[in-house]
Amino acid sequence: SGRLFVERSPSAESEGLRIISHQNAPILMAYTYEVVDILMAYIVESFDRETKVIDFHYPNELLQMNNWELQDEPATLDDILISCRATLKYAIKTAHPRYFNQLSTGLDMVGLAADWLTSTANTNMFTYEVAPVFVLLEYVTLKKMREIIGWPDGRGDGIFSPGGAISNMYAMLLARFKMFPEVKEKGMSSVPRLVAFTSEHSHFSIKKGAAALGIGTESVICIKVDESGKMIPADLERRILEAKQKGFVPFFVSATAGTTVYGAFDPLIAISDVCKKYNVWMHVDGAWGGSLLMSRRHRWKLDGVDRANSVTWNPHKMMSVPLQCSALLVREEGLMQNCNQMHACYLFQQDKHYDLSYDTGDKALQCGRHVDIFKLWLMWRAKGTIGFEAQIDKCLELSEYLYNKIKDREGYEMVFDGKPQHTNVCFWYLPPGIRYMEDKEERKKHLHKVAPVIKARMMEYGTTMVSYQPQGDKVNFFRMVISNPAATFEDIDFLIEEIERLGQDL
Amino acid sequence: SGRLFVERSPSAESEGLRIISHQNAPILMAYTYEVVDILMAYIVESFDRETKVIDFHYPNELLQMNNWELQDEPATLDDILISCRATLKYAIKTAHPRYFNQLSTGLDMVGLAADWLTSTANTNMFTYEVAPVFVLLEYVTLKKMREIIGWPDGRGDGIFSPGGAISNMYAMLLARFKMFPEVKEKGMSSVPRLVAFTSEHSHFSIKKGAAALGIGTESVICIKVDESGKMIPADLERRILEAKQKGFVPFFVSATAGTTVYGAFDPLIAISDVCKKYNVWMHVDGAWGGSLLMSRRHRWKLDGVDRANSVTWNPHKMMSVPLQCSALLVREEGLMQNCNQMHACYLFQQDKHYDLSYDTGDKALQCGRHVDIFKLWLMWRAKGTIGFEAQIDKCLELSEYLYNKIKDREGYEMVFDGKPQHTNVCFWYLPPGIRYMEDKEERKKHLHKVAPVIKARMMEYGTTMVSYQPQGDKVNFFRMVISNPAATFEDIDFLIEEIERLGQDL
Repeated sequence: SGRLFVERSPSAESEGLRIISHQNAPILMAYTYEVVDILMAYIVESFDRETKVIDFHYPNELLQMNNWELQDEPATLDDILISCRATLKYAIKTAHPRYFNQLSTGLDMVGLAADWLTSTANTNMFTYEVAPVFVLLEYVTLKKMREIIGWPDGRGDGIFSPGGAISNMYAMLLARFKMFPEVKEKGMSSVPRLVAFTSEHSHFSIKKGAAALGIGTESVICIKVDESGKMIPADLERRILEAKQKGFVPFFVSATAGTTVYGAFDPLIAISDVCKKYNVWMHVDGAWGGSLLMSRRHRWKLDGVDRANSVTWNPHKMMSVPLQCSALLVREEGLMQNCNQMHACYLFQQDKHYDLSYDTGDKALQCGRHVDIFKLWLMWRAKGTIGFEAQIDKCLELSEYLYNKIKDREGYEMVFDGKPQHTNVCFWYLPPGIRYMEDKEERKKHLHKVAPVIKARMMEYGTTMVSYQPQGDKVNFFRMVISNPAATFEDIDFLIEEIERLGQDL
Repeated sequence: SGRLFVERSPSAESEGLRIISHQNAPILMAYTYEVVDILMAYIVESFDRETKVIDFHYPNELLQMNNWELQDEPATLDDILISCRATLKYAIKTAHPRYFNQLSTGLDMVGLAADWLTSTANTNMFTYEVAPVFVLLEYVTLKKMREIIGWPDGRGDGIFSPGGAISNMYAMLLARFKMFPEVKEKGMSSVPRLVAFTSEHSHFSIKKGAAALGIGTESVICIKVDESGKMIPADLERRILEAKQKGFVPFFVSATAGTTVYGAFDPLIAISDVCKKYNVWMHVDGAWGGSLLMSRRHRWKLDGVDRANSVTWNPHKMMSVPLQCSALLVREEGLMQNCNQMHACYLFQQDKHYDLSYDTGDKALQCGRHVDIFKLWLMWRAKGTIGFEAQIDKCLELSEYLYNKIKDREGYEMVFDGKPQHTNVCFWYLPPGIRYMEDKEERKKHLHKVAPVIKARMMEYGTTMVSYQPQGDKVNFFRMVISNPAATFEDIDFLIEEIERLGQDL
């Protein structure tokens, strides 16, 4: 096995190095097939419940376990294959049916193949000229998503962005531009003090976006939620009035459809009434819950979403599309273009020979933009809408099974009452030792330490992974989420057994 | 070939649909290998000069050439393979050695294999917990890049972001926060009017970023460039003084190392002197030219880069890393974290069992972040630093060859004098019919139409692709760039022949 791409040439052309790149295609093809075999073996392993989800090592250990340093000299082909194997050996098996740690889990093989095709096509979304098919597929898919939201004839606008945080930031940017278009040229000093509203359980990206856009985190007003984590519309109205009385200008409400921790759906119809009354842009952050629109059984949870001005919807979460795939859908056509365009004449030449409306790059904040559409589009072809529906329904069934299993089980307490709206099931596990502690504060203090220890043990055994966190005055609890349709009832049973096995001595 | 992933189950579990996902692994593996064969055939074709760079169709035609619509019902496996073939049939062969259209061209097979591994691992960069190896590789690689910039011991900070525009936006965000940390909470209304400076040839993302961050495009002051497109430091100083006299606060200078059109390198040392004198953050947008730091022969063009506070450097351009791979490097440690962190407790739990400094997600604007590091890291291993150097040097040799070939050739005019600093060669081709026109204005008017027609014909013949644009008072000219190390002297000869063949009748 020789050195790749750069070989020392006998004719000693410039500094003795010669690029061989594609000239030695057969060697490279063979090598690439070897990598594919490694990947396929990894996939088979990831799908196998007998393998570990994770082979955990502390950072300083992992740094020692392979030579990760970059060198001046090229490595051998063998070394490259070894590096691929080592990287996978210590990776998290996110496709493993017992990996529940994040909102994005699982591995869809059609999505994967589509992502491999995307890498191979290696192009940018900015113009039709360099991405004709992908630009059209984005157009077709965004239209379909808008139809599902319920906007007439699927009209409107949108873009695929690098994640829900950026999609939410786009929404805030558009809302500001809609109300004060002069802000684009003149900046925030030309406008009155703007305030945004979102629930206290909403995603941190709303505040992050406000900080970046020069609005400031103090201008994001957090609205109270009810016991199950839903925004209270009366509190929203109260806080809007309060802000107006102070002379501030309410410009943006972000309702959440599927909060990160509780999986709560804010009441969109009531919120839209408030937004309409005070003429405020209504955004729905459906990064996590938007996919429930694909399910005839669950889409009622987003009733009122068609009244929104913009919607974030991440197919890379509940629809198992490979990372990343996040869409921002916008009701008003043309606004994104006006808000973001800078007319770069080296890219968006106005004298091209085709319909320039397909050069969508100038409505983005990015210049180059990764092709995130093909994996979603191909999966949609493969499954049909009913296939996505079935896998979403299945994940929700699994979470209901979990909820029913633990809600009255000894040693468990639910963080909030009632059937989960999304696949989030939030609960405390109380080891026998603290189950009957009388001192409430003492009990709470102990309970706070339980989840982190169980989680650390899960990772060291490598058997499963689930997230935990505190929230408000609630000490650390487990947040179970299910987005991998490969999970089964038995996997849920296993999780519970594992929590009890690892936590009983605490 | 059956339907994929969703089959109608005889046992009619919930709505007659059953998710089969990974249970039918053998079928899926076989299918995936079929897709790999399609991809490999496409790569072989792309590397073959006898094939077309593009099989061009107008958008409305292309919409009719396949059934691109999304359906409720699943498609067959055959249809999925047909869709993959159709997508590639109408794609641009960005790996073709005669595709010169963008700053990102070519296809590196190690990079491609690494990107396939990345898709397979399907995880997020936000925590060490879910991306242990990738987080470490990002750490190792950013440190190496900072060493190459010349910061002591490679100290500092950085992040891989979704493209140069976002990297530049990060830089502007950091500069603002460094000067006025209160802007994070209180927004732009708490600070004086800020002004940024960049050359009139700089990338449009500087203005786009200023618009998004609430600074406003009018607060981006464009500094004059000399005949070859380099920022004039004296004009920068003059404009900074002028801004200060108006009571504005200069906070950010973005020097460009490799402008998009001319490939010019702003004089970094002189600019850094001005920045230091007026205490302004110095950013270097090296999205295009940063990679020349890898070349002992060419890195002098960035002399002074080590004085910058931040540097954008896109390995997906001149280093042929698959899209996207863009780094922002920052000299001050900890600033990104302070600027962007929001302490989301569901993700960045403070009671985890490992060293939390590896949970780098809170310094990003994104929440989920795609793994862009592995393809760069694996290519670096495969080539070594000297391999990147060799391919960069080769591309620059090719552009010098082109420059020497046309600078005195009949029918050509260079847009600016002198040897190109980067691989950008900017020129007009004058067809015989207008070559000797006496009326300068008439000639200019005709010349403006030449490049678009030749480009349109290139795309219809599918033989090659090169970009064109006007700039300032200069009518449409070709901007040739070379970033694909698979290109040869013969490909340059071909380009010139093709321009003459397609343009001689104009």
